[in-house]
Amino acid sequence: IVVQTVLGPGDLLACPDPTYSLYPVLADIDEAKLVNVPWEANWSLPTKALLKAGARAIFLANPNAPSGTFVSPERIAELAEAFEGVLLVDEAYVDFADAHCIGLVKECPRLIVCRTLSKAYSLAGLRFGYAVAQPSIIEQLMKVKDSYNCDAISIIAATAAIKDQAYAAWTWEQVRGERQRLAEALEAMDWAVIPSHANFIFAAPPGGRGKEIYLGLKQQGILVRHFDKPHLRDKVRITIGTPQENNALLLALKQMSAGEKAA
Amino acid sequence: IVVQTVLGPGDLLACPDPTYSLYPVLADIDEAKLVNVPWEANWSLPTKALLKAGARAIFLANPNAPSGTFVSPERIAELAEAFEGVLLVDEAYVDFADAHCIGLVKECPRLIVCRTLSKAYSLAGLRFGYAVAQPSIIEQLMKVKDSYNCDAISIIAATAAIKDQAYAAWTWEQVRGERQRLAEALEAMDWAVIPSHANFIFAAPPGGRGKEIYLGLKQQGILVRHFDKPHLRDKVRITIGTPQENNALLLALKQMSAGEKAA
Repeated sequence: IVVQTVLGPGDLLACPDPTYSLYPVLADIDEAKLVNVPWEANWSLPTKALLKAGARAIFLANPNAPSGTFVSPERIAELAEAFEGVLLVDEAYVDFADAHCIGLVKECPRLIVCRTLSKAYSLAGLRFGYAVAQPSIIEQLMKVKDSYNCDAISIIAATAAIKDQAYAAWTWEQVRGERQRLAEALEAMDWAVIPSHANFIFAAPPGGRGKEIYLGLKQQGILVRHFDKPHLRDKVRITIGTPQENNALLLALKQMSAGEKAA
Repeated sequence: IVVQTVLGPGDLLACPDPTYSLYPVLADIDEAKLVNVPWEANWSLPTKALLKAGARAIFLANPNAPSGTFVSPERIAELAEAFEGVLLVDEAYVDFADAHCIGLVKECPRLIVCRTLSKAYSLAGLRFGYAVAQPSIIEQLMKVKDSYNCDAISIIAATAAIKDQAYAAWTWEQVRGERQRLAEALEAMDWAVIPSHANFIFAAPPGGRGKEIYLGLKQQGILVRHFDKPHLRDKVRITIGTPQENNALLLALKQMSAGEKAA
């Protein structure tokens, strides 16, 4: 909806690169042009380059996918103030991070923060999301929104899920705990782990053999994600599973590593 | 989705008029131009005038809203064959009629038949619909469709509803029976009733006092629909209710009529 409302044919959309792979698809559907602005060193926000792009909108996944890195609300506020277009902060993974940008909406008239229940509430099948922005922005979105774009059952289920913050927070703690344990175990195996603020870890195995690790794990029925692209192909993205699933992953990695040393 | 796929800014969409009031809204969102083609006498399909409009797409609600009238598949096949654009037949109410156009899809490469579970399956809250067309058309729709535009729960509920044809057919029979009874009762009170193929009746009270009837019933907590437009404002649209609801409506109408005669 945001793409449809803000961007027409030929309009520019700027995103830090690499980021969530659906943005180019959405831009394509509305015939908008996508400008990929490389992240600065250590996945820092390329504020100047984003502003220079002359875009009508900026999409910022925060935490970012697939890196799991996080830009502080302070830096995002700077970008929002300097940018004359619409800034969308996609907080799909934000409940696994330590801060968020909802508080910025009051001061930033062209900021949209969007969330989904697909990640932090384990309700991907519900296809339920929402956006927070000032009334002037929401009014524009309403013009394009379908009359009833959420069904009654999904609204009831989403409301119940959001109300039960105690349960949700408990699940996030489990993910953070396992994320920490998995990161330490991978580092002990000489992986280069990017500090994650999401429910996955993006990390490079020794020698940057991302594809080999992906294929080796797949053979054992363990699926991680490999992106065959610059800056990404040396790494794999590992979703945090249950303690048992994470143990199975670590065991498989150890066996693969031992097999190589023996060979 | 059909509007988004088929129509761009400035493209023409033709509809028989009057018809479902959402079509102009959808055309507006995609900046398409709507051409209203008046129905021929007795709500017959204005085939020639629709073809002459030079539109890129034709939307035909069949049965039509708010009239409840029905165009035979034979006449629609003639239009589909002669028309070079995309013909969408919106069969939202078709389960209350005696025929449908799904069978035409095989022979008509530019025909789309769409259905909803909001009417004949009593699942308006589910927001579930589907379209039937040849693969070449569906492929185009898929380009614009959201990755997951129905949630898992709605798909399960819709599947269960469609599977239980015995129950669905039983509800349709109840509606048809009450429709017949209500039409006869209204005619006995000198209403001009348009033969209905839908789950509502569109009819003119004596003297064409549609608005007065609407307001009088509203005062008694009975809601019917009044359209303050040419060819429509002398009538009201009455949705078929339960036998008890229909009796309450008939009683209220009789009391209003008696009150007028006494005054």
